[in-house]
Amino acid sequence: MKYQSDIEIAQSKELKHIKEIAQKINVKEDDLEMYGKYKAKLPLSLIDDEQIAQNNLVLVTALTPTPAGEGKTTTSIGLTEGLNKIGKQATVVLREPSLGPVFGIKGGAAGGGFSQVVPMEDINLHFTGDFNAVEKANNLLSALIDNNIQSKTNNLNIDPRTILWKRVIDMNDRSLRDITIGLGGTANGVPRQDGFNITPASEVMAILCMASDLENLKERLGNIFIGFTYDNKPIFAKDLKAENAMAILLKDAIKPNLVQTLEENPAIIHGGPFANIAQGTNTIIATKMGLSLSNYVVTEAGFGADLGAEKFLNIKSQFAKLNPKCVVLVATIRALRHHGGAKSEDYNTPSLEKVKDGFKNLEKHIENIRKFNIEPVVAVNAFTSDSEEEIDFVVKKCANLGVTAVLSKGWEKGGEGTTELAKAVVEVVEHKASNYKPLYDWKSPIKDKIEVIAKEIYGAINVEYSKQAQLNLRRIDRLGFNDFAVCMAKTQKSFSDNDALIGRPENFTVTVREIEIASGAQFVIPILGKMMRMPGLPAKPASENMSIDKNGVISGLS
Amino acid sequence: MKYQSDIEIAQSKELKHIKEIAQKINVKEDDLEMYGKYKAKLPLSLIDDEQIAQNNLVLVTALTPTPAGEGKTTTSIGLTEGLNKIGKQATVVLREPSLGPVFGIKGGAAGGGFSQVVPMEDINLHFTGDFNAVEKANNLLSALIDNNIQSKTNNLNIDPRTILWKRVIDMNDRSLRDITIGLGGTANGVPRQDGFNITPASEVMAILCMASDLENLKERLGNIFIGFTYDNKPIFAKDLKAENAMAILLKDAIKPNLVQTLEENPAIIHGGPFANIAQGTNTIIATKMGLSLSNYVVTEAGFGADLGAEKFLNIKSQFAKLNPKCVVLVATIRALRHHGGAKSEDYNTPSLEKVKDGFKNLEKHIENIRKFNIEPVVAVNAFTSDSEEEIDFVVKKCANLGVTAVLSKGWEKGGEGTTELAKAVVEVVEHKASNYKPLYDWKSPIKDKIEVIAKEIYGAINVEYSKQAQLNLRRIDRLGFNDFAVCMAKTQKSFSDNDALIGRPENFTVTVREIEIASGAQFVIPILGKMMRMPGLPAKPASENMSIDKNGVISGLS
Repeated sequence: MKYQSDIEIAQSKELKHIKEIAQKINVKEDDLEMYGKYKAKLPLSLIDDEQIAQNNLVLVTALTPTPAGEGKTTTSIGLTEGLNKIGKQATVVLREPSLGPVFGIKGGAAGGGFSQVVPMEDINLHFTGDFNAVEKANNLLSALIDNNIQSKTNNLNIDPRTILWKRVIDMNDRSLRDITIGLGGTANGVPRQDGFNITPASEVMAILCMASDLENLKERLGNIFIGFTYDNKPIFAKDLKAENAMAILLKDAIKPNLVQTLEENPAIIHGGPFANIAQGTNTIIATKMGLSLSNYVVTEAGFGADLGAEKFLNIKSQFAKLNPKCVVLVATIRALRHHGGAKSEDYNTPSLEKVKDGFKNLEKHIENIRKFNIEPVVAVNAFTSDSEEEIDFVVKKCANLGVTAVLSKGWEKGGEGTTELAKAVVEVVEHKASNYKPLYDWKSPIKDKIEVIAKEIYGAINVEYSKQAQLNLRRIDRLGFNDFAVCMAKTQKSFSDNDALIGRPENFTVTVREIEIASGAQFVIPILGKMMRMPGLPAKPASENMSIDKNGVISGLS
Repeated sequence: MKYQSDIEIAQSKELKHIKEIAQKINVKEDDLEMYGKYKAKLPLSLIDDEQIAQNNLVLVTALTPTPAGEGKTTTSIGLTEGLNKIGKQATVVLREPSLGPVFGIKGGAAGGGFSQVVPMEDINLHFTGDFNAVEKANNLLSALIDNNIQSKTNNLNIDPRTILWKRVIDMNDRSLRDITIGLGGTANGVPRQDGFNITPASEVMAILCMASDLENLKERLGNIFIGFTYDNKPIFAKDLKAENAMAILLKDAIKPNLVQTLEENPAIIHGGPFANIAQGTNTIIATKMGLSLSNYVVTEAGFGADLGAEKFLNIKSQFAKLNPKCVVLVATIRALRHHGGAKSEDYNTPSLEKVKDGFKNLEKHIENIRKFNIEPVVAVNAFTSDSEEEIDFVVKKCANLGVTAVLSKGWEKGGEGTTELAKAVVEVVEHKASNYKPLYDWKSPIKDKIEVIAKEIYGAINVEYSKQAQLNLRRIDRLGFNDFAVCMAKTQKSFSDNDALIGRPENFTVTVREIEIASGAQFVIPILGKMMRMPGLPAKPASENMSIDKNGVISGLS
């Protein structure tokens, strides 16, 4: 059997006009800022705190993933279709894809199979320009920094060697990781070492996703920490009077985007920060918009639950006073085999033994979610290579833990394939099984916050700090940033900071190598390994297989 | 008297919904791709060759400008208002502003005073994302080039020292002019010298503005010349299979944007290439769109007529088979004083003597326009510092040459201030005074084409070629690019290649220092001086005075 590609499925669907989708969530046409017929921005005035308090937030996360990912986005979209199918008014709220990976290995990020958001080409390309706006705001600050160093009349005495702020570009472009700028003589600025990160790694993206409104956005942008003067005074974006111009560049990007699922249900897609060095989830504004307009909001957070859900629950939910009612843990039989020791070439080969052994990874994630006083539901994202006995094992094992596990067939069947999952989620929500509480208080000391996460969530027995990290801690203390959230940057491949420790590692220590500051986002970022902030293209880039015909129909985009 | 700022005037105007503007040119709402309520993209299917042949194209250009510019955009918009006021159905077709200068010295480019296109904030900021799309397409090609050099399996043997293709960013950022990329070890690419130009300087922008449709765009993108292999074979974008992915990134950018003037007349704004190293005028598609939908199209081309009009008439009109019916030469009394020898501090001091002496500059431009068999009209863009005797002199002097010169008060009064100008233009058009012909045939040899422009338009007695230029000519010949247009890159401050030679220089020689190739745009670019492709910010950037309030209202943007 030949499967249709994602783009073929997406293109075969006739889309509803976005004003019809808006009607489903009672948004008047006049409130929409349309971007063509199938995309629209929603005004912030639609956010309604009373509705938010009454409606139901469901977070989709996953077990520790294999490199291909376990299908959180597909499951989130599928679950939304399923909820609508069983009569619930549900909206999916997601991150925007980054353009860089579209031409690289990963491809786009608009779901898959029969659980997609559309128009998928637009969502995966420039969409409504939000990423570009973030990029420009980031790079305006860079230009202002270098211009100030160059300037004779307005000079803040910035020491170029201390500048932590990097330029960004939404492109997989390894050659820009490490560069020297300002060459070619006195007219061309002051030479210094610099580099480009990919746009989702920009602190401006993290800030956009944390901001509550335009005023708060501006304040956060002004608080971005840049580096030091030669006499060791900290320099912030507001010292360069940058925050207003940056906010001007973001005036439209702050508004969430409405699109539709393949089954014509509302999808709000907004913001896309990295899941390692940032919070890895859509804007707070989008989540609140969804909850203002819809009885159920299904959302997701990047990587496994030790990263995405931890940050969603400790950072985003705590800051925005959100109250998640259920967490869906996406598992695949393939990933369970992996955690049971299967090699990548055997991921698709049934093995009850490996699944049995790998279940310990999922079990730890289930335990972790419960530490937030939230009841999980396990969604087994179905693959054709799954055997019945493997699935039965997972379902029974979860039942023993008091957790409902359901086979989710969103990829194959859309909402038809997820009604059971939807019912299980509604069961948890309507029986008020959850009573969310964060795991730490933002006001507690940085080291305490790190320790809670490392021990309670990762299962570490100890946290060590490199010399650099200890220096960073003193800097954080000196700058008065102790009450920031901690946004852990760790490998997604293991509960530990060591890729090789799959399953449920025990008796391990994690090492904090350094701690970065994102003072606009109000994070400190403990780095527990080498973080990639600028991917490269593969030897044969995806761009080579793409085409567009004279009518603008695209193929080869995935 | 305190004048309102441009943004204050623009914000005090209540805009019409874009569908009402579209109605004026008989475009159905369903054909619009709206970007909010006041911007829309127009589908290429509306282009109608029969209508184009019947309707009237008016080009606005200028005498040799002072650094502040003489108000071509303001005059173009004002003239459009005036034409509509006297009962003609007229649309203004313009370039999109670049974002970089908005934060620099120049500010935006959406007209001024009571002759503006709106919403001016959006037009000056990200607008509908076209510049971003150009930037991404340009930088995808850069990433593919460096990725190919890095790649072991797919390597084209490109010699990094020969790469002419640069990255672009739409930001005034001098520190990126001259950089070293690919540092930091084998994982980060191959070290080489590179640099960023500002986005309007990208050949992708020139190509977008020359393309007739999506197929032609793709073909042109594939034909971009990148550099050579180690064994001296030319490498083009198509060798990297880049053209489809680049065209995919430009799928929406190829569609012209509809907005409105302050007097609710249609404005089509699309593309924005540099006026020195590129053609300096909006897309061919936009001009054709305007002519398909409107009886009169008023458009402009960057810098003075020796650059903008020459390229418009020899390159754009010849290639696209356009038939301009009238050229409006914008003059200011201030610029005439300048060409008569006034220092910049005396630009606003009346001096009949200086105006008399400076008129020779305008006279040469009048002669030049007539070489294309087109009748000019002179628009004296009014300033409060103009004296009556200066204006009278210009009007009479023009009359002696058989040219109507009219005081244009679009900045102060909008269409009320330009009805006389509009009548003069209609007079030329309706009496079929013009019968456009280009000055050279594209098929003639490169050196002949350069010589025609230098002698006929600039008034040079001779053209010299540097050693580099001679080498470049041999390369062009070897690559088979002799039948490309020549897109001259020369200072805008003088007819000659020497800034200091104001007025009407005579007995001068111009020197072609090098000749670049833009094989996708089908230009060769003779460089007659140092061309700035990446501006810097001033010591006190414009961004410092900008602000945005909690409702999103912007101030300080100009």
